[in-house]
Amino acid sequence: TIYNFSAGPGVLPAPVLRTAQEELIDWHGTGMSVMEMSHRGKDFISIAEDAQARLRALMRIPDSYKVLFLQGGATGQFVGVPANLSTASGVADYVITGQWGQKAYTEASKYLDKLNVAARTDPHTYVPPRDEWRLSATAAYVHITLNETVNGVVFDEVPDTGDVPLVADVSSIILSEPIDVTKFGVLYAGAQKNIGPAGLTVVIVREDLLARTRPRTPQVWDWYAMAKANSMLNTPP
Amino acid sequence: TIYNFSAGPGVLPAPVLRTAQEELIDWHGTGMSVMEMSHRGKDFISIAEDAQARLRALMRIPDSYKVLFLQGGATGQFVGVPANLSTASGVADYVITGQWGQKAYTEASKYLDKLNVAARTDPHTYVPPRDEWRLSATAAYVHITLNETVNGVVFDEVPDTGDVPLVADVSSIILSEPIDVTKFGVLYAGAQKNIGPAGLTVVIVREDLLARTRPRTPQVWDWYAMAKANSMLNTPP
Repeated sequence: TIYNFSAGPGVLPAPVLRTAQEELIDWHGTGMSVMEMSHRGKDFISIAEDAQARLRALMRIPDSYKVLFLQGGATGQFVGVPANLSTASGVADYVITGQWGQKAYTEASKYLDKLNVAARTDPHTYVPPRDEWRLSATAAYVHITLNETVNGVVFDEVPDTGDVPLVADVSSIILSEPIDVTKFGVLYAGAQKNIGPAGLTVVIVREDLLARTRPRTPQVWDWYAMAKANSMLNTPP
Repeated sequence: TIYNFSAGPGVLPAPVLRTAQEELIDWHGTGMSVMEMSHRGKDFISIAEDAQARLRALMRIPDSYKVLFLQGGATGQFVGVPANLSTASGVADYVITGQWGQKAYTEASKYLDKLNVAARTDPHTYVPPRDEWRLSATAAYVHITLNETVNGVVFDEVPDTGDVPLVADVSSIILSEPIDVTKFGVLYAGAQKNIGPAGLTVVIVREDLLARTRPRTPQVWDWYAMAKANSMLNTPP
C-alpha cells in the first residue's frame, strides 16, 4: 500500500477499492454501472438511501436532523451556512483556530453585514477557552472548525453556545472519532478527506433550522429545497 | 448491454468502463487509486491536464477560451452565468425553448433586476426564428439551451447575437455533434448526460469575459478565480 499523508484526498481501504472495482461495471446484476444509472431509478435511490442509513447509524444522527448529499465541497458550504441560517443584515460569530476557519470567515463575510470574530488564535496552536469568546447577543449562529488539518488544532470538547446554533466544519474529523451530533445545529464536510472520493459534500442539519434560507440562495445550496427533494433537486454526484 | 434511455445519466461505453475498472485500484503504477491522490500532486494534475487537452482537441476549443472543471451541475451554473457576466442592476436576455431554459431563467431571475424573455415557445416544439426575438439593447448576454432534452428541441444553427455574448447550456448535446465554440461567449454542461459520471461541470468561457465576476459570488463559481487556479481553488471532483 502507498500511503498519502497530504492534507487533501486520503487513502481508501483496499477491500473498499476492490469492491468498488468489482461492482463498477455491473451493479448487483442490473447490467449497469452506478455511473450510468438514472438518479430517479430505484437502484440508485436505494444506494443513496443505504449511504444515508449507514452514515446515520455510524454517527447516531437523530431523526430530528436531515442528512444532505450536495456538491461544491466545504468551500461551497462556507456560503451555504450564511445563506441558509442568516439574513444579510444579521450577525454571526466565528471562532478561528486555523486556515480553514479563516477561509470560512472570509467567504461568509461577503454575505453578512456583521460578521464577528468571537475568538482568533495567533499562532494557530490551541483552542481559545470558551469563557474568552466574545459572542454577539443576536448571532444567527456560531461557527467553528472542529479540527484544523493544517496546524492540527482540534476541539477536545464541544463548546456550549446556549440557544445559538453551533455550526462546525468537520471535513477532517468526521467518522474518525465520535461526534455528539445533538450538540450542533449544523455539521458539514467535504467527503474527500475522511469519507470517500472528492465531489460529495455532506450537510447534517437540525430540522428546526431549515426554512430560513434566503430568497436569493442558489438552488443547489438551498438546504430546505434539497431536504424536500432528498438531495436530488438536480443530478447528485 | 443494458441501455438507459432516461434523460439523466446515460450509458458509458463498455471499454471505458473496463479501463476505469482496471485502473481504479492502481493508477499507472502509482500504487494509488485516483480517488486517493492529492489533487496537488503531479499524477492528478496530469490527469486533469490530459482531460482538458482531449476536450480541447475534440471540440477545437481555441486558446482564447478557458476550460473550467467545476461542481454543482448545470443547475449550479444557472447562477454562475449571471454572477460572472452581469451586475445585479444589469439586463440579460433569455430564449426559452423548453424546461431547462425555463429553469435557467427562473434561477437567474433571483440575481438580475431585469431579466428579459426575448422569446419563449409554447408548446416547446420549435426554435423561434431569430428575427422574432426581442433582444434588449444593453443585454450582458443572451442565454439559450442548445438542445432541450425533454421535448427534443435543438437549434439547427447558432443564432447571431452580434457583440452580445451568446451563452448556451449544452449539457445534452456536448460531444455528440460538432459545436462551433467561436460563436459562443460561454458554453456550460453537466458531465452526466454526454461526457461521463455525474459530479463534474464543464464551463468553456472566452477569456475576455472573465474578470466580470460580481464581488459576492461564491468562490467555487467564480470563473475568474477558478481560471487562475486551474479549477483547483478547492478539491476538484
